Amino acid sequence: MDYQRILNDIYQEVSPVIGEGKVANYIPKLAGVPAIQFGMAVHTLGGNIYTIGDARKLFSIQSISKIFTLTLALKMVGEDALLERVGREPSGNPFNSLVQLEYENGIPRNPFINAGALVVADILLSNCNNTKAVILDFVRERSDNMDITIDPEVALSEKANGFRNAALANFLKSFNNLFNPVEEVLETYFFQCALRMNCVDLVKSCLFLANHGLSPWSGKQVLTKSQAKRINSLLLTCGTYDAVGDFAYRVGLPGKSGVGGGIIALIPGKLSVSVWSPGLNSNGNSHAGTLALELFTTKTGMSIF
Amino acid sequence: MDYQRILNDIYQEVSPVIGEGKVANYIPKLAGVPAIQFGMAVHTLGGNIYTIGDARKLFSIQSISKIFTLTLALKMVGEDALLERVGREPSGNPFNSLVQLEYENGIPRNPFINAGALVVADILLSNCNNTKAVILDFVRERSDNMDITIDPEVALSEKANGFRNAALANFLKSFNNLFNPVEEVLETYFFQCALRMNCVDLVKSCLFLANHGLSPWSGKQVLTKSQAKRINSLLLTCGTYDAVGDFAYRVGLPGKSGVGGGIIALIPGKLSVSVWSPGLNSNGNSHAGTLALELFTTKTGMSIF
Amino acid sequence: MDYQRILNDIYQEVSPVIGEGKVANYIPKLAGVPAIQFGMAVHTLGGNIYTIGDARKLFSIQSISKIFTLTLALKMVGEDALLERVGREPSGNPFNSLVQLEYENGIPRNPFINAGALVVADILLSNCNNTKAVILDFVRERSDNMDITIDPEVALSEKANGFRNAALANFLKSFNNLFNPVEEVLETYFFQCALRMNCVDLVKSCLFLANHGLSPWSGKQVLTKSQAKRINSLLLTCGTYDAVGDFAYRVGLPGKSGVGGGIIALIPGKLSVSVWSPGLNSNGNSHAGTLALELFTTKTGMSIF
Amino acid sequence: MDYQRILNDIYQEVSPVIGEGKVANYIPKLAGVPAIQFGMAVHTLGGNIYTIGDARKLFSIQSISKIFTLTLALKMVGEDALLERVGREPSGNPFNSLVQLEYENGIPRNPFINAGALVVADILLSNCNNTKAVILDFVRERSDNMDITIDPEVALSEKANGFRNAALANFLKSFNNLFNPVEEVLETYFFQCALRMNCVDLVKSCLFLANHGLSPWSGKQVLTKSQAKRINSLLLTCGTYDAVGDFAYRVGLPGKSGVGGGIIALIPGKLSVSVWSPGLNSNGNSHAGTLALELFTTKTGMSIF
Repeated sequence: MDYQRILNDIYQEVSPVIGEGKVANYIPKLAGVPAIQFGMAVHTLGGNIYTIGDARKLFSIQSISKIFTLTLALKMVGEDALLERVGREPSGNPFNSLVQLEYENGIPRNPFINAGALVVADILLSNCNNTKAVILDFVRERSDNMDITIDPEVALSEKANGFRNAALANFLKSFNNLFNPVEEVLETYFFQCALRMNCVDLVKSCLFLANHGLSPWSGKQVLTKSQAKRINSLLLTCGTYDAVGDFAYRVGLPGKSGVGGGIIALIPGKLSVSVWSPGLNSNGNSHAGTLALELFTTKTGMSIF
Repeated sequence: MDYQRILNDIYQEVSPVIGEGKVANYIPKLAGVPAIQFGMAVHTLGGNIYTIGDARKLFSIQSISKIFTLTLALKMVGEDALLERVGREPSGNPFNSLVQLEYENGIPRNPFINAGALVVADILLSNCNNTKAVILDFVRERSDNMDITIDPEVALSEKANGFRNAALANFLKSFNNLFNPVEEVLETYFFQCALRMNCVDLVKSCLFLANHGLSPWSGKQVLTKSQAKRINSLLLTCGTYDAVGDFAYRVGLPGKSGVGGGIIALIPGKLSVSVWSPGLNSNGNSHAGTLALELFTTKTGMSIF
Repeated sequence: MDYQRILNDIYQEVSPVIGEGKVANYIPKLAGVPAIQFGMAVHTLGGNIYTIGDARKLFSIQSISKIFTLTLALKMVGEDALLERVGREPSGNPFNSLVQLEYENGIPRNPFINAGALVVADILLSNCNNTKAVILDFVRERSDNMDITIDPEVALSEKANGFRNAALANFLKSFNNLFNPVEEVLETYFFQCALRMNCVDLVKSCLFLANHGLSPWSGKQVLTKSQAKRINSLLLTCGTYDAVGDFAYRVGLPGKSGVGGGIIALIPGKLSVSVWSPGLNSNGNSHAGTLALELFTTKTGMSIF
Repeated sequence: MDYQRILNDIYQEVSPVIGEGKVANYIPKLAGVPAIQFGMAVHTLGGNIYTIGDARKLFSIQSISKIFTLTLALKMVGEDALLERVGREPSGNPFNSLVQLEYENGIPRNPFINAGALVVADILLSNCNNTKAVILDFVRERSDNMDITIDPEVALSEKANGFRNAALANFLKSFNNLFNPVEEVLETYFFQCALRMNCVDLVKSCLFLANHGLSPWSGKQVLTKSQAKRINSLLLTCGTYDAVGDFAYRVGLPGKSGVGGGIIALIPGKLSVSVWSPGLNSNGNSHAGTLALELFTTKTGMSIF
């Protein structure tokens, strides 16, 4: 399949809507990102990489980082221990809702809502020293890119404005579902959200999820086949906030979005594909990005359904 | 692949748990079904059918009927008209919750929760005469089995005990999201739930969903490719009540369950598979049936992820 | 105290706002009531009656009828039996919310929300023949006015538009908290809401609540002292829909309002006072009526606090 | 009336249940309080004080302190400014629920739920220097007792275990309904909850609420008549957590309870009455204390209803 031509065509078709939507504005640094940017990358299992537009421009990956910390936590404690502290059901509610947490006694519905990601961060803190370094090393290794780092200004801003996340963390703590100090958990979470990566980094680092847990270009078995399958099912049912159904309906791929405008998606057995454009739709997912992925599945005829 | 041997193996492995779980007991007729029964069927796109156990024994399909009425509604009014009255997001709540409906002004989250199915029934009533006959004809044609009929005793019992569904229907009506009389909508819904089919009927009738909308054995294009894909995404994200995440996690296939103990699932591009065993797990899905499907994806190595 | 002068003064002061607010419009007959009407009546324990404006004009008492049916139910089955099926806590939610009912397993929070009144109606149905006649006789006797009757057109309209109440009743039934057929309970409820009374009828009929259960002008002990006290506490904490706090804050008296624009309030040990003006405030209580009662407590210096 | 004899009689009658119920155990210092203690005090407007049992034993007043901070806030900013940031409706939910807060955009339902008290503390912080000293001085002056102080161990324990309150405060902050740093607001709140007073202190300090805002023994007009009336209405409709209806039903007086086992109640125009016994009923109110107050209204025949 001529992926490059498909990317070219998609770029042309989404051009009119690039810049539409609303750039995340709860942090000054994010609010200042120009909306008219668009990048996309594809990485086949065979090893080819295709890119278009701003595919090598860095952006704040935000919630996409939850894939990396979940992967680490799964490796550290395994499925069963994880499932005792965080569920695997879609939330059916806005992504930072406290309501659900209250009705379910402090067990977050899944690892991709903020509460769930805080519990995952807590698991990392309990299972390694210097958690931030562990996360950073893992992301660098998975991306084969030692230059990846965080934006310290974003991390600081998240902290200064993170009252809802602080509420969530304290709430989890009140249910005894955080074992480390609230401040450390939040610090870790804000760190991972502030990671800066580009579209190429994303397709490289997540390719193992499209290949039964084995990263083809590095030969490293990151997760077992079963674990990789389970993360994909979580991505499909819980990966895109309150728009899981909409995303599955239109794109039909397991994927994860971030408020920085990035999205990574996977076609198991074939490839990983990422897109970035900062303007968000009403669900908090990249507007042009979602459209581009929808076009990608249409044009390639690839879908898991 | 030797499907028959796989079915034989599965049958042997699940044997110890057949009869475990709780048979649905809100209706005398359902409560009287012996728990120790198990059937399974596979229908490949190539046209082969494989069966094991009670695969030709009739059971009450209950909520599985929502696939058929949704298919009919999609054909009648199209996606856009449907989405104005019913959403496509997982519910994140028990399947007949009124809470969600209240917070979302009478728009059911998706067509597979009871409220959504009532709206779908209302759409059918508005778009055809003798709706019950239309539903029955459609199911018979899709299954190539003119003997399919309803269990009138079940339909009557549903009605006599259907206070929650009556509450839902009246509630939808108060939000102006039912256009036909409450009684007629309930009557239609109870009718469809009372359909009796067997595992072979199910794999035949739903095979078009595994084949881009085209029923291979009949040559009939039941839905467009895009519509079939969308129903599969709805099945994966919303098809198994409050256990959508659990089912996706363990089985990883689009599927629909019913409280009669039946489940139909699809491997797009390959086959349809159905299972029936009346004992239900705590999520209201067949206990042995869910396990059997999990084994099926493990043994065949087939999964959408 | 010169009550007549106080009523005159109040009339003058509220005159500018009479007609403000929104007349209940879910029923044609109620929607057609001219907004610019205002009546008020006071009945002292000593036996004097004072009136102003349209105090003898009939209006639909609607939810005020819940006082009468609750009184009857208390007499029939006593406190303990009643409290097993309906609570005594403020609802903290809009008056016909289904949410609360779901979280509390079909036990309505108190007898003045619609769900609670339906349970009370069900209790009457289980404890007397010809319940409607019993209710009507009781109201007539309490008001010393044999002309009181219902508006059949209002009763019919309530039924034709009562989908939310039908949802509530079916929901209660699904929790086994209605023993009679849903239709009969609704019929009784719509009947009581359609009663037509005037301000003088209301102060006469409810005076026993201001006098330890003894109706002074008839000499009849309607309730025990303890029961009367309990109804007053229920009126204060639950009598004015979602505006209980606002009403207690501004008026500071036990009272009950109806969407017809009527309000009855009590000053224990002193008097009963009623007001009617059809324009409703955003809480569903009479706008001019609430203001008039606020002025009444200010001018008389009477308050329970 | 012979109040002393009434107190004696009550003491005798409640004796068998003193020690029943559960002492608050979320803080070691509170958990260590022996359950078998009981004190009661009455202060008439005429100036007489009557006591029984442990009426001069100090205990942690906890939520009763919300009366004092609310009084201070009312004096500082007035009703209107207060009502912009905190409501006056009963919560209809457990006292520290985050759900309500989310649905109502960060405006606590009333000043007596924890979220409301945090907003009140924030108001004090914005309107005075050294807020803790201001609170302490006010309580000492109102009680005519310069020995009143806090239990620093309790304050520290509250802080160390106050994750739910920290969640609430961060949540309020995320809705911009706290203007001071979260830590300062919590510090103030934990300070006020750790105040130690006895039954006599309570009846002295709150007597102004039974006398139109004027403290009779000091001659000081603490609040206006209207403000005092409004606080009483808030106490009746919101003062006893989720048991407002139960307390109004059984006791029928405006009152405020604390998890330390204290309760203060008021009979407007007559007296203030306090009780203390550490064993709590299932609603979090003193078990023997609630019973004692119920007996008090029965024996004196005094009730606001």
